[in-house]
Amino acid sequence: MKRFKVSFACILLASGFTTYGAVDGEIAFTFNTFAFLLWGALVMWMCAGFTMLEAGSVRTKNASVICMKNIGLYSIAGLMYYIIGYNIMYGDGNAWFGALDLGFHSTAAESALFNGDEGATIDPVLAEQSHSSMSMWFFQMVFVATTASIISGTLAERIRLISFFAFVVVLTGLIYPLIGKWTWGGGWLTELGFVDFAGSTIVHSTGGWAALAGTLIVGARSGKFRDDGSVKATPPSNVPIVTLGVFILWLGWFGFNGGSQLALGSGFDAISMGIILVNTNLAAAAGCVIAIAISRPVFGRTDLFAALNGAIGGLVAITAAPNFVDHIWAIPVGAIGGAICVLGMRFLDFLKVDDVVGAISAHLFAGIWGTLAATFTVGANFLIQLIGVAAIGATVFIASFGLWSLINMVFRARISETVEQLGQDVAELGIEAYPEFVVVPEEELLPDTER
Amino acid sequence: MKRFKVSFACILLASGFTTYGAVDGEIAFTFNTFAFLLWGALVMWMCAGFTMLEAGSVRTKNASVICMKNIGLYSIAGLMYYIIGYNIMYGDGNAWFGALDLGFHSTAAESALFNGDEGATIDPVLAEQSHSSMSMWFFQMVFVATTASIISGTLAERIRLISFFAFVVVLTGLIYPLIGKWTWGGGWLTELGFVDFAGSTIVHSTGGWAALAGTLIVGARSGKFRDDGSVKATPPSNVPIVTLGVFILWLGWFGFNGGSQLALGSGFDAISMGIILVNTNLAAAAGCVIAIAISRPVFGRTDLFAALNGAIGGLVAITAAPNFVDHIWAIPVGAIGGAICVLGMRFLDFLKVDDVVGAISAHLFAGIWGTLAATFTVGANFLIQLIGVAAIGATVFIASFGLWSLINMVFRARISETVEQLGQDVAELGIEAYPEFVVVPEEELLPDTER
Amino acid sequence: MKRFKVSFACILLASGFTTYGAVDGEIAFTFNTFAFLLWGALVMWMCAGFTMLEAGSVRTKNASVICMKNIGLYSIAGLMYYIIGYNIMYGDGNAWFGALDLGFHSTAAESALFNGDEGATIDPVLAEQSHSSMSMWFFQMVFVATTASIISGTLAERIRLISFFAFVVVLTGLIYPLIGKWTWGGGWLTELGFVDFAGSTIVHSTGGWAALAGTLIVGARSGKFRDDGSVKATPPSNVPIVTLGVFILWLGWFGFNGGSQLALGSGFDAISMGIILVNTNLAAAAGCVIAIAISRPVFGRTDLFAALNGAIGGLVAITAAPNFVDHIWAIPVGAIGGAICVLGMRFLDFLKVDDVVGAISAHLFAGIWGTLAATFTVGANFLIQLIGVAAIGATVFIASFGLWSLINMVFRARISETVEQLGQDVAELGIEAYPEFVVVPEEELLPDTER
Repeated sequence: MKRFKVSFACILLASGFTTYGAVDGEIAFTFNTFAFLLWGALVMWMCAGFTMLEAGSVRTKNASVICMKNIGLYSIAGLMYYIIGYNIMYGDGNAWFGALDLGFHSTAAESALFNGDEGATIDPVLAEQSHSSMSMWFFQMVFVATTASIISGTLAERIRLISFFAFVVVLTGLIYPLIGKWTWGGGWLTELGFVDFAGSTIVHSTGGWAALAGTLIVGARSGKFRDDGSVKATPPSNVPIVTLGVFILWLGWFGFNGGSQLALGSGFDAISMGIILVNTNLAAAAGCVIAIAISRPVFGRTDLFAALNGAIGGLVAITAAPNFVDHIWAIPVGAIGGAICVLGMRFLDFLKVDDVVGAISAHLFAGIWGTLAATFTVGANFLIQLIGVAAIGATVFIASFGLWSLINMVFRARISETVEQLGQDVAELGIEAYPEFVVVPEEELLPDTER
Repeated sequence: MKRFKVSFACILLASGFTTYGAVDGEIAFTFNTFAFLLWGALVMWMCAGFTMLEAGSVRTKNASVICMKNIGLYSIAGLMYYIIGYNIMYGDGNAWFGALDLGFHSTAAESALFNGDEGATIDPVLAEQSHSSMSMWFFQMVFVATTASIISGTLAERIRLISFFAFVVVLTGLIYPLIGKWTWGGGWLTELGFVDFAGSTIVHSTGGWAALAGTLIVGARSGKFRDDGSVKATPPSNVPIVTLGVFILWLGWFGFNGGSQLALGSGFDAISMGIILVNTNLAAAAGCVIAIAISRPVFGRTDLFAALNGAIGGLVAITAAPNFVDHIWAIPVGAIGGAICVLGMRFLDFLKVDDVVGAISAHLFAGIWGTLAATFTVGANFLIQLIGVAAIGATVFIASFGLWSLINMVFRARISETVEQLGQDVAELGIEAYPEFVVVPEEELLPDTER
Repeated sequence: MKRFKVSFACILLASGFTTYGAVDGEIAFTFNTFAFLLWGALVMWMCAGFTMLEAGSVRTKNASVICMKNIGLYSIAGLMYYIIGYNIMYGDGNAWFGALDLGFHSTAAESALFNGDEGATIDPVLAEQSHSSMSMWFFQMVFVATTASIISGTLAERIRLISFFAFVVVLTGLIYPLIGKWTWGGGWLTELGFVDFAGSTIVHSTGGWAALAGTLIVGARSGKFRDDGSVKATPPSNVPIVTLGVFILWLGWFGFNGGSQLALGSGFDAISMGIILVNTNLAAAAGCVIAIAISRPVFGRTDLFAALNGAIGGLVAITAAPNFVDHIWAIPVGAIGGAICVLGMRFLDFLKVDDVVGAISAHLFAGIWGTLAATFTVGANFLIQLIGVAAIGATVFIASFGLWSLINMVFRARISETVEQLGQDVAELGIEAYPEFVVVPEEELLPDTER
């Protein structure tokens, strides 16, 4: 924790903290804590957004298993990040790794006050910290789940449930916290000057790289890429819930970016939070509009799925640096994020990388763009941004590739051909997503046009 | 902005502001700002509510295009209101029109503080304003989208996508901001004494009038009104998501009305916010219960769709004046709003106005009722309320009718018969909402009874 | 109110209130009020969660009626609790019953300030109360609806709509408020020392007992329990919305438990709220993971429905006492709650009690466990906890059984066989949930295996 607090204080001092105002310490503490809890609750809600987005995007025969993966990954993330993750990320240690302690607790001063120990007051708490320890843990925990959600989308319809869960255990307990240590934990990338306000790279690209590594191990869905070079269309099976999912994500992103101010205990913080929400919304809107505009030339139709992913691309892109007052720049940052997301989906098809929900495109490609764009929006150093993107990318990709390979050996990462044909819902869970609805036989389903 | 601030201060002074208490300025600023951001986020969420309500209400063959309209309208609204809308509504100018400036920014004092300029403190900010500029922008922006959402519901299943988007551009950039200037922007209707706390007329009726004008241009869905005077039943295609949509709207309305207190920086504001939420909930509950009760005599069955719309009718009705302490009055205001909504649906059928989701009934009819009801709940002047309703109604209706006519000439407002038969999802988007489910042929779908 | 305030103050004094800090009274008042309103809004959102959970769990032919029940019960609860419920729970009176007054209002001091009466200031308000009266009402109101929601899940697919609503009127106006008086209203159970922080017993078990009583009157769905002892499988009809429902509940539970701190006006409260949210999340995660783990031996498959209910079981279990700093204990509390929930579903099948969504298992069984578990997590007295569970259980069960019997005589509680075969949607509402989708004939639907 020490390192984090020091670096955090440095940032505050650097931007002139002492001049922000004079909100009483306990009141500021309360604001800071409440902001963590409320915004954190909204970020948790993003997990429902990913679930709807993914469950509506896959074939109906694989929709239940996606629900299982998402409720499971959020649970696993919450436990693993509690048991070891948070300490790896924020514990004392060095610039590369925190501490390998089990569990996480309120400070002694907080516990004494909470337990009503004799003579305990809020003063020693306020002397040490600006927010409650557990509120900070809660806010950081919900971010971990986001990373894992990205992966379940890309690898949908062919990754085994057990293999996915095994990956999530290591990702949320070790890989993500490690990347987090290097950056938000005050590690070497932060010391170098790497800027990633709310996690375009730290959260979104990390998820994207891990997903990409996974596709190399499990491959594409059967028949997705045909021998003649054409690509089989696999449109969403339930469009309204996909749309609902994107609205949930958009809403949750206000917490994701706004809460990443990490404080609300001064007028300065309040002003910053307002600025951040406005940029977040402008970028998403621009990403959506541009995606609608370019989807016709790119896909040959005004594509809803592109529009929805475009909004996400805009959101991911602004996440690295949503904190600037020239709001007009949020529009190109988001618009280019949206465009990259749409074009990226095409590009992945070209590479024969099968990304069921377009998550690599939205989270990895737009995430890289956003991290680099921080150069002109908030004056980050381009080279350092590039180093951060590359270092995190290489680490996550290599670690994930190794982990997926290991999992593949132990559990077999991919479902069998029979399971793929039957659908994971029946074969792995024994529970269909929509058992009462008569379903069109697959071979009659789709016009044989490219997607 | 000046005019707004003056009138806002007047209201505060009139009700004895100086006696409310003595919360420190920076703390009050933080509360006010945080309230705008959180309640604003909930109002943004209403857009998802409209999407679910509408997507579940239309035929399955038109559900994707409704999703596209809603994600698109929210994006367009966010951009247009940023680029020109907000300044028209709150910019300096006269009692009829704000300013035609591009973009909107934090004040110089806020920017200086945010950017860490040497010597910058919160003091000059607090001297000028009671909340962050961008938080206010954010809260106002989400209201604009609501207005547009109303229209997409009424005109569903036959308005062309491009025509709808073209209308939204002008509505959110010009028409709504103009009405907003007259009222919340401190214009002539506010000077006259017109009361519309959170927008029964300003937001909801505006949407309703624009939708009504649209129906005159695009007409009813084919076959909706038969030659023999009977009305073809067009029940919702996905009832659970319609219900979800209404719950989302109900939740979001706490932000819509509660946030319209526009402040939380004193005990007075906190008390007010509690009072507002209670009235909002009572009115919605009463609207729902009364709709259930009267649906059997009116529709010949205990109608869920009526119950859901009744809740919305109650919410719209209380919106003009949710701020009074005799809570019992919230019940008749909401109940009559709910009843009007249900009877209004019948009335529109009689007029052969095809309103797919009952939006004109819920938002326009109940909105007028609510605005007039402010006479007895908060002592508004009946005549002035009537003038406000009429002036806004006439302006919006005429402007919208003109705009729809223009759009009709340029783009053709209505889809072709073939597209209507095929469904907009396939014909306009090339993406079905539920491609895997076998659908009942339309002619076998509905019992030939009146709705 | 007096009794409540006294007991509340006692708790505060007992844990050393005067040492918490020195937040100005009006600021603390504002924090407390805002917390009630925001967390309360999230608890209201749980009603949408129950709706989705239940609508997705029943046959498609009974999904609309479940939506009607839920929007209706929330409306009825809001009205009944306003008209008489709150006063029975928090009004003056004795240790067993509050007051039979109609309506509820702000205090005179609040009203004077709100109405801008001459000379009115916040001071007399602050002298009397720590939060706005109506914000407290709002927060308590949303809890009532939760209790009713539990019942609609268990009794789905065979309880008549009118009978259900009749039960809800009495439950929310009388039965729940009575139990509430004994406990949170400062009545005899609180005086005895019974601990139920956010309502494992007061809310969740109450709903569960009422549901259990209902099953004895209405019986199981036709064909659910076969003569040969086997149980007919009745899997969810729409799995994604069931999952959505559980995510909504999980999110809302942060408000349910966090808001039950009943204050945010000090650093102590902020610290407590953070601690509560962390325990809540850990327990839910543990409940979900354990349910996944044991579902294979119990049900013969990795059961999603079990996983989802396991999370709820964990949430219910932690609700009685989420306020302790040794977070590691939240994991066994939640895990055992999840396990009890899964095994309870099996047990109810064995008893031939037909609980459509597993609500008795999740809310009653896990609720009892959680209330007893408070013994070791927060040092409650085991015997007193047992007395509380038994007294509330007996009272609610007997009152509910009597009420259901009466309703059965007046309205007939159960639908007719014909209605059951046709489905309640068509027969009671005349509105199908998914009218366009072709549905598999029931006899072809399910493999004849045990569930």
